[in-house]
Amino acid sequence: KHIILLPGDGIGREIVESAVQVLKAVAGEFGHTFTMEEHAIGGDAVDKFGTPLPDTTVKACRNADAILLGAVGGPKWDGVPADRRPEKGLLGIRKALGLFANLRPVKGFPSLLHASPLKESVIEGSDILIIRELTGGLYFGTPSERRDNGNAVVDTLAYQREEMERIIDKAFQSARLRRRHLTSVDKANVLESSRLWREIVEEKKQDYPDVAVEHLLVDAAAMKLITNPNQFDVMVTENMFGDILSDEASVLTGSLGMLPSASIRSDGTGLYEPVHGSAPDIAGQGMANPLGTILSAALMLRHSFGMETEAAAIERAVRECLDQGYRTADLDTQGGQVTGTQQVTDAVVENLT
Amino acid sequence: KHIILLPGDGIGREIVESAVQVLKAVAGEFGHTFTMEEHAIGGDAVDKFGTPLPDTTVKACRNADAILLGAVGGPKWDGVPADRRPEKGLLGIRKALGLFANLRPVKGFPSLLHASPLKESVIEGSDILIIRELTGGLYFGTPSERRDNGNAVVDTLAYQREEMERIIDKAFQSARLRRRHLTSVDKANVLESSRLWREIVEEKKQDYPDVAVEHLLVDAAAMKLITNPNQFDVMVTENMFGDILSDEASVLTGSLGMLPSASIRSDGTGLYEPVHGSAPDIAGQGMANPLGTILSAALMLRHSFGMETEAAAIERAVRECLDQGYRTADLDTQGGQVTGTQQVTDAVVENLT
Ligand SMILES: CC(C)[C@H](C(=O)O)[C@@H](O)C(=O)O
Ligand SMILES: CC(C)[C@H](C(=O)O)[C@@H](O)C(=O)O
Repeated sequence: KHIILLPGDGIGREIVESAVQVLKAVAGEFGHTFTMEEHAIGGDAVDKFGTPLPDTTVKACRNADAILLGAVGGPKWDGVPADRRPEKGLLGIRKALGLFANLRPVKGFPSLLHASPLKESVIEGSDILIIRELTGGLYFGTPSERRDNGNAVVDTLAYQREEMERIIDKAFQSARLRRRHLTSVDKANVLESSRLWREIVEEKKQDYPDVAVEHLLVDAAAMKLITNPNQFDVMVTENMFGDILSDEASVLTGSLGMLPSASIRSDGTGLYEPVHGSAPDIAGQGMANPLGTILSAALMLRHSFGMETEAAAIERAVRECLDQGYRTADLDTQGGQVTGTQQVTDAVVENLT
Repeated sequence: KHIILLPGDGIGREIVESAVQVLKAVAGEFGHTFTMEEHAIGGDAVDKFGTPLPDTTVKACRNADAILLGAVGGPKWDGVPADRRPEKGLLGIRKALGLFANLRPVKGFPSLLHASPLKESVIEGSDILIIRELTGGLYFGTPSERRDNGNAVVDTLAYQREEMERIIDKAFQSARLRRRHLTSVDKANVLESSRLWREIVEEKKQDYPDVAVEHLLVDAAAMKLITNPNQFDVMVTENMFGDILSDEASVLTGSLGMLPSASIRSDGTGLYEPVHGSAPDIAGQGMANPLGTILSAALMLRHSFGMETEAAAIERAVRECLDQGYRTADLDTQGGQVTGTQQVTDAVVENLT
C-alpha cells in the first residue's frame, strides 16, 4: 500500500510523524508493507513553491492508495491573496481527487468525558457519525463573484442529483454498519436544493428498509446536537451545513484533539486528517496531541485498506494509552499526567506490539 | 400605537393572548393607548384563506407600528405544496416589510440555569445578542430552481452591498449600547459573499473606534458558542448562518421557552415573536409558556416605541414571577412548581401593577 504524507503547517509535521511510527508498528506486527512519500501542501507549499497545492502533490496523491494529512493554515499566511491561502490546498485536493464523503465519528472516551462542556448526563453514551458531502454545494458552485461594480455579490449552492445520491447511499450503508438510524439534515422549508435532497432520501429509503430515517431542519439539528446528542446515530448533510454541524459536534465530548476524519470516494481512496487545526502557537514544542492523527491512520486502514483488525488494534492501543494516564496538555489531566507527543506515541506503539 | 396581532398556529393564540394582557396592564400603568387588531398568518391563514399570507394581513401590517406574532407551522400542513407552507407566511411578511435585522438576545435566568445542557461553570454569566440579517442571502436569492430535467439544482446566496452595510451598522450600534465587543461571523475562506462582508466590517470599524471587532469563521463560531459562550457580546452574521447559530445559541441556557426575538427595520417598525415554535402537541391545554412572547412584547416597547422604562418593567416583572416560583411545564421546576399559562400571566401582570 502506498501512502502520501502531507504534513502541512504548524503541528502537522509532528503529528504525522507520530502516526507514521504507529503505521510502521502495524506493518511490522501484521506483516504489511506500507510505502510512504512526503509532499507539500498548505502554507508550507506556498513558502516552498508559491502555491498551496503544487502539481507534484496532486500527481503523487492520484497515484496513492491513501493520504495522511496533518493540518493546514496559520496566521503567517493571513495576508496572502485568496487564491493562495493554505486552505485552498485542502479544498483543491478534495476536489481534484473527488473525495466526496467526509466521515466524522464523534464519540467520547469515558476517561476524558468530564472535560466536556456538556453535563455528563447529557453527553454520556453519545456516539455519532456525521457524514458531510465534501465536493459540492456553496464550496464549488459558480458563479461566485462580485457584480455591479462591487456593489453586489453572489455565491452559488449547486448540486447534481448524482452528487446527492452517492453521499446519501454512503450514509445509508454506514447506518447499516451501526445502529441503523439515519438523520438527514436539510433546510427544505427554504432551499430548493434541500427539497431535492429530501426527495432523494425518500426514494433511497425504499432500498434500505432496515434503516430508520428521520428528516431534521439544520437549525433544529444545531439545537438537538446539544440538548440530545444521544438521539443521533448517523447524520448526513450537504457541504456547508456539514462543515458547521460537524465542528459543532466536535466540541461536545470535550476532547477535540482526539477526533479523526476521513474523506473518501467510492473506490476506497481517501484522505485522512485530524479534526483539529494546525495550532501554530505550540508547533515544534513536542507537546501536540498526536492521537487524532493516529486515529485517522486507523480510519485509513479500515476504509481504504480494508484492514479492520489492524484499525481496531490501533483504536484499542489508544484507549489503553489513555487508561494508562498519558495526556497531552490539550486534554483534561484528571486521572492522568501531562506527557509530550513522543511519549504518547511511544505508549501507543508499545500497546500495539 | 397600533399593534397587529398574528397568533398563527398551535400555542400561538394562547401566548399572544397572554402578551396582550401584559400590554394592557402596561398601557394602564403608564398611561399609553395601544390599539390592537388581529390578522391571520401561517397554517391558520391557509385554512381560512388558502394562503399563508393573505393580502389583508400584509396591508394591515404595513399600517402598524409593530406586530406581535405567536408561532407558525405544524404537522397538519406538512402535506401542502411548498408555496403554501405556513413558514412562507413568516418569510413573506419579513420580506414585504423589509424587516432586515433579527435581534436574538440570549441570556439565562439565574434561577433556571441548572436546566442548561451545559455545565453551569461554562454557561454562567453569558449574555449574547445575536444579530442576523433577515431579508437576503440564500433565503431570497434567485435563481432557486431545478435544472437539466431535475438532475441538477441551484440556490443563490445573493447580497447587495447596502444590505450588508445596514445590518453591520446596526450591529456596531447595538454593541455600543452593550459591552462594545462585536464578533462578525462569516466563511471568508470559502465564500466571495463572506469576503465582501468582511471588507465592509473592516471599513465600518473606522466609524466605531470604541467597539472591539473580531472575525470568526462560522464553523469556529459553532464551536465557541458551546465551549466559551462568555466570550461573546454582540455577534452579527448573514441570514442562513444566523438561522443556524441563533438556534444553536437558544438552547444553551436551558430555557428556550423564555427567549424573545425582534425583527426590525431602520424606521423602528418591527415584528416580535418568541424563539420557540408552535408546539402543536400542547396547544389549547393552557400549559404553554407565555414568557417568551411577553418578553417579545417588552422588546417591542423598547425597539419600536422607544419605551425603555416600560420594557424594563416587564422584564423585571418576569424575573420576579420566576423568583416567586412560577414555572410552566417546559421549564425545570427546581425551585418552583408547575403552573399554567394563565397563572403565570396573572403573576406577571400582578408584579407590573
Ligand atoms: C479550511 C476550510 C476551508 C475547511 C472547510 O470549510 O471545509 C475546514 O473548515 C474543514 O472543515 O475541513
Ligand atoms: C420557519 C423558518 C423559515 C425560519 C427561518 O429559517 O428563518 C425559522 O427557522 C426562523 O429562524 O425564524
